[in-house]
Amino acid sequence: MNVGIVGATGFGGLELVRLLQQHPGVKKLTLYSSSKKGESIETIYPHLNGIKEGKLEDIDPYKIPEQVDFLFSSAPTGVSASLLPPILERGMKVIDLAGDFRLKKSEDYQQWYKKEPPDPKWVDLAVYGLSEWNTDLIKNAQMIANPGCYPTAALLGLLPLIKKSLIEVSTIIIDAKSGISGAGAVPSVSAHFPFANDNLQIYKVNQHQHIPEIEQMVHHYSETNKPITFSTHLVPMTRGIMNTMYAEVKEGVSSKEIEETYIEYAEQHDFIRLSPSQGFPSTRQVYGSNFCDIGWSFDHRTQRITAVSVIDNLMKGAAGQAVHNFNLMNGFPETAGLPASPVFP
Amino acid sequence: MNVGIVGATGFGGLELVRLLQQHPGVKKLTLYSSSKKGESIETIYPHLNGIKEGKLEDIDPYKIPEQVDFLFSSAPTGVSASLLPPILERGMKVIDLAGDFRLKKSEDYQQWYKKEPPDPKWVDLAVYGLSEWNTDLIKNAQMIANPGCYPTAALLGLLPLIKKSLIEVSTIIIDAKSGISGAGAVPSVSAHFPFANDNLQIYKVNQHQHIPEIEQMVHHYSETNKPITFSTHLVPMTRGIMNTMYAEVKEGVSSKEIEETYIEYAEQHDFIRLSPSQGFPSTRQVYGSNFCDIGWSFDHRTQRITAVSVIDNLMKGAAGQAVHNFNLMNGFPETAGLPASPVFP
Amino acid sequence: MNVGIVGATGFGGLELVRLLQQHPGVKKLTLYSSSKKGESIETIYPHLNGIKEGKLEDIDPYKIPEQVDFLFSSAPTGVSASLLPPILERGMKVIDLAGDFRLKKSEDYQQWYKKEPPDPKWVDLAVYGLSEWNTDLIKNAQMIANPGCYPTAALLGLLPLIKKSLIEVSTIIIDAKSGISGAGAVPSVSAHFPFANDNLQIYKVNQHQHIPEIEQMVHHYSETNKPITFSTHLVPMTRGIMNTMYAEVKEGVSSKEIEETYIEYAEQHDFIRLSPSQGFPSTRQVYGSNFCDIGWSFDHRTQRITAVSVIDNLMKGAAGQAVHNFNLMNGFPETAGLPASPVFP
Amino acid sequence: MNVGIVGATGFGGLELVRLLQQHPGVKKLTLYSSSKKGESIETIYPHLNGIKEGKLEDIDPYKIPEQVDFLFSSAPTGVSASLLPPILERGMKVIDLAGDFRLKKSEDYQQWYKKEPPDPKWVDLAVYGLSEWNTDLIKNAQMIANPGCYPTAALLGLLPLIKKSLIEVSTIIIDAKSGISGAGAVPSVSAHFPFANDNLQIYKVNQHQHIPEIEQMVHHYSETNKPITFSTHLVPMTRGIMNTMYAEVKEGVSSKEIEETYIEYAEQHDFIRLSPSQGFPSTRQVYGSNFCDIGWSFDHRTQRITAVSVIDNLMKGAAGQAVHNFNLMNGFPETAGLPASPVFP
Repeated sequence: MNVGIVGATGFGGLELVRLLQQHPGVKKLTLYSSSKKGESIETIYPHLNGIKEGKLEDIDPYKIPEQVDFLFSSAPTGVSASLLPPILERGMKVIDLAGDFRLKKSEDYQQWYKKEPPDPKWVDLAVYGLSEWNTDLIKNAQMIANPGCYPTAALLGLLPLIKKSLIEVSTIIIDAKSGISGAGAVPSVSAHFPFANDNLQIYKVNQHQHIPEIEQMVHHYSETNKPITFSTHLVPMTRGIMNTMYAEVKEGVSSKEIEETYIEYAEQHDFIRLSPSQGFPSTRQVYGSNFCDIGWSFDHRTQRITAVSVIDNLMKGAAGQAVHNFNLMNGFPETAGLPASPVFP
Repeated sequence: MNVGIVGATGFGGLELVRLLQQHPGVKKLTLYSSSKKGESIETIYPHLNGIKEGKLEDIDPYKIPEQVDFLFSSAPTGVSASLLPPILERGMKVIDLAGDFRLKKSEDYQQWYKKEPPDPKWVDLAVYGLSEWNTDLIKNAQMIANPGCYPTAALLGLLPLIKKSLIEVSTIIIDAKSGISGAGAVPSVSAHFPFANDNLQIYKVNQHQHIPEIEQMVHHYSETNKPITFSTHLVPMTRGIMNTMYAEVKEGVSSKEIEETYIEYAEQHDFIRLSPSQGFPSTRQVYGSNFCDIGWSFDHRTQRITAVSVIDNLMKGAAGQAVHNFNLMNGFPETAGLPASPVFP
Repeated sequence: MNVGIVGATGFGGLELVRLLQQHPGVKKLTLYSSSKKGESIETIYPHLNGIKEGKLEDIDPYKIPEQVDFLFSSAPTGVSASLLPPILERGMKVIDLAGDFRLKKSEDYQQWYKKEPPDPKWVDLAVYGLSEWNTDLIKNAQMIANPGCYPTAALLGLLPLIKKSLIEVSTIIIDAKSGISGAGAVPSVSAHFPFANDNLQIYKVNQHQHIPEIEQMVHHYSETNKPITFSTHLVPMTRGIMNTMYAEVKEGVSSKEIEETYIEYAEQHDFIRLSPSQGFPSTRQVYGSNFCDIGWSFDHRTQRITAVSVIDNLMKGAAGQAVHNFNLMNGFPETAGLPASPVFP
Repeated sequence: MNVGIVGATGFGGLELVRLLQQHPGVKKLTLYSSSKKGESIETIYPHLNGIKEGKLEDIDPYKIPEQVDFLFSSAPTGVSASLLPPILERGMKVIDLAGDFRLKKSEDYQQWYKKEPPDPKWVDLAVYGLSEWNTDLIKNAQMIANPGCYPTAALLGLLPLIKKSLIEVSTIIIDAKSGISGAGAVPSVSAHFPFANDNLQIYKVNQHQHIPEIEQMVHHYSETNKPITFSTHLVPMTRGIMNTMYAEVKEGVSSKEIEETYIEYAEQHDFIRLSPSQGFPSTRQVYGSNFCDIGWSFDHRTQRITAVSVIDNLMKGAAGQAVHNFNLMNGFPETAGLPASPVFP
């Protein structure tokens, strides 16, 4: 299979290159970039020195379907909305890593992204690619809206409890922390090393565009449509997300019920791992891998659960989940092309 | 004034040395250490190369009152309880940076510290040294139980709202993050660089001994005695604490009331600084200083406030606050010996 | 093939686990540890949560040959000398990652390691496993003394110039810098995060045990036996080695000759990559991979070359090179089990 | 004394603000910035929240002499050349932290800076402000060209040996490493956190504009004018420079002579500290201070000395040395306004 990557010079794109280079189902990679077309990716990113087919092609949505069999798009949010429709029209299968097609309600997109929403026709077509929760839909999808990094960690940790109605959805508070690669490859003040190093920053409190994405799935699996509280921090590390999540446990729900729910859940999914009882995961233990590790504690003093999920934001939070979805869509083994082990230390 | 520092080779002790070396009211420093007695502190810590009076004296509670006029004790929690009483008996003024004398209820100490509590006589004598909130008590105290790092950040951010009854105390959730110097000077697995670097760890969820310390003050200023939720993270940075704190705002309370409360509060205190409206502080902006910087946002969707406080854990969270208290106890200007500006970047 | 790893809980061992888990020629892994025998490696290292066959077996040199077909030993230097002979006696193939068998002269071992050298019989048997330079010897070896991390980077960068007699060997100065994982998995003062972070340390100046290892190969490829200068630094990063190497260029040697030498060299070896002219590599560009990237500059003002080589100390500097050697010894493709792309960023 | 700071929003300027805020000889600070004139520095740098006189004034060289009594200029190199002459014409005392006036030979400036050199009249007037070596000249100077960060560390470590003719100047090789604040406050690719973190970079090999600055002083104190070798690395830390310096020791020179030279030197200068015999300094031990710490080892195998000097690049390498010079020029105690202790950890 010939596979294309749009936006290959961003962090999501680079991680796709890393994974797909060694994917057993990929015969050839074609890399696209509008800003760097004609250059070789190895002159920009010397870690790819020696890569075959490193030349960056211009992005022409009318030519892409003739050049590749499957497309990953890692263009910035706002670009996908206009770039992908001509490609989708031709019936091509696409995984989009941007935010454009994730929110089913146009008004949510407008409110939180402050941009014009894409044509609802394509939004309706798009399957929200949370691999473990939309597995069957993904298998049959033409197009995947690959989830955001924070929502992936949040939903994978909370949905098992919400689906079984073990917690009060209206009390959910998510305190999210991310490594700085989440801010992308373009230099900025908050990611300038002398400012970011030895520093902990908080940003977009109550205003992050991932809030409606989380709520959309939370509300889907619960009877309420109450808003949640969500805030995001920049931790001085390159990769990794930890979401610390708080909620009231419904009256009568026991620790044992929670434990059994999580155990059963982890057993069903290759990439979900549960910390031993009373243990909590750290971000480094999933570095470079597609795992989501979960730990939790039920505090009887407050009747609240503290659930913690960690992922690698560029893997399970972006390219890794995209490759997982690619495997589901094409009948490859779920773990094809994904590393068995995190990089540690 | 001749001043002694017990536990001079720990991080709290070292920071006291840095500050008191240049304090205008300190004539002579005497450094005590049981494990390193007889050695010079500069051979252990070369950043102090050239320090006058660097010799480490043995800790003898019966001799200390003859050697110094005022004592800072930065011994580990559990040691102060037996070390300080003979010194206090002699009427000497003491600031203790350990946890031994902070909790007024013996049962709290036993439950959370899993140690025998000190003689209640001395616990009763000890004034909880939250500089901005117990100012008058501190001025007249013989002995100060200097607050813990996390409680300092939490209480300085929350008490103004609690005192004015603007938030529902029972809904308080504190998500705390600390730099790794909080773990002390002794090497350990979780602070081993290859494990701690590029990693975010969570620990002591619902079990941290600072929980009852926070609750003690929160309950003092409110009508409830409901427990709070508190969890702690290790961020790959040397110094700094950020507490992200969530609570429901009482019905009818407006953003304006909250803003006015914080503005008035910041105006009254030299070391409290308020971020501009809609702004949030980062830990680096208080690095090496005694400031506590506060920011907040009221989310009308959820009726919750997100309040954020940052401190330098070794300064406002330990040695800096101790020197502030020392100033209060001795009639020095409140800012004496404390840097006017953080170290940035 | 059933493969055993002795010392699986050290950093070299962990990296072997990561690589061999997905190696196409490895059927089963057996992990050995004397200190942790009976435990499961995933309880010590949760990044391996879910690993098959994670149980740690006791190290019994008489049983190992019955349990596995091939052995990697990542025991500490000094242990291999007594552990491996009984295994070698049985004719088993072994790759040893420790320093015990690297130095051909007993007196060098004694002088630099301050330990008793192993039986010369086994030292003579051992092939120094610098993959690109001893390829044929490695293919036919029963036993490999896998090179040290610093010597690997130094030799891969210098030997092409030395072999062609382009530089004055007696003027070689190597300024080496390593990430802190080089110090191993056991917590220590110099690797304690509050001391190591935001800090640059220098250690073992003129005393590092890798000096004779470098000199042994340098002298083998040159006509001189003059000593070199070598010093080592600890950089606040987890992985990576950069060696900045200085030497006088022999009179009459041109830039062009140097360039052609390096180009030809890089073309012959899969894991050697040359920076574009006037470019220099950074450590991150080989993170998690088996590459050695090289850059250089000839300064006509001083008639000196500055050559720079970077590797991942746990990969090309340890486990990656060991797997490369394993491939050579067993007729697998040279790149089998080794990642095509570094992890970036 | 009313003191002005031009370029207050750069890192050198910020550090001057930190120091001069508490300098006993400074009555009032005026901050100048062309790009941010009219703004308050605390809105750009919240660590200065609450600073008196934080308003940024426009830079008008004809008005400055009416507004302040003494000027620090921390404008970028190339700007000082045209900005300062009108101010100097008025007889005002100035310390310039840029590179414009450091090189006495115009052709050196043109070759290494690729810019037009300033009027030689002012270059001749400027005293090179290496505090410990030009003390008397500085005391009587109208204008100081404050040294670069790398040259300060290099010269303070080497000049004692060169002046006494203990080493072969033609063999000097300086391997310099800096924290990333040395790259300044403007975001860039090499300082973008995801690229800079967990990475070691090398840059400007044999091309750094600090080379002629080092050579100028080295040649002044020796009989030779041979070039030196110098290369620079970016270490993932905020502050700190370590120069590892190699040179052949002249025949007949003993370890004892070197030791005595360094001991005598350190005894004469408040800000020079010598590591104990066989010990080496790390950068963290001078963090936030004006110290230069030195260690060394004489290797009899190679007849070479390895000398190591560390400084805080923003302090002794910039603002700290400038304040030291300000003290010398104005008859203040040499240590006035400079912290007695580094910030550690």
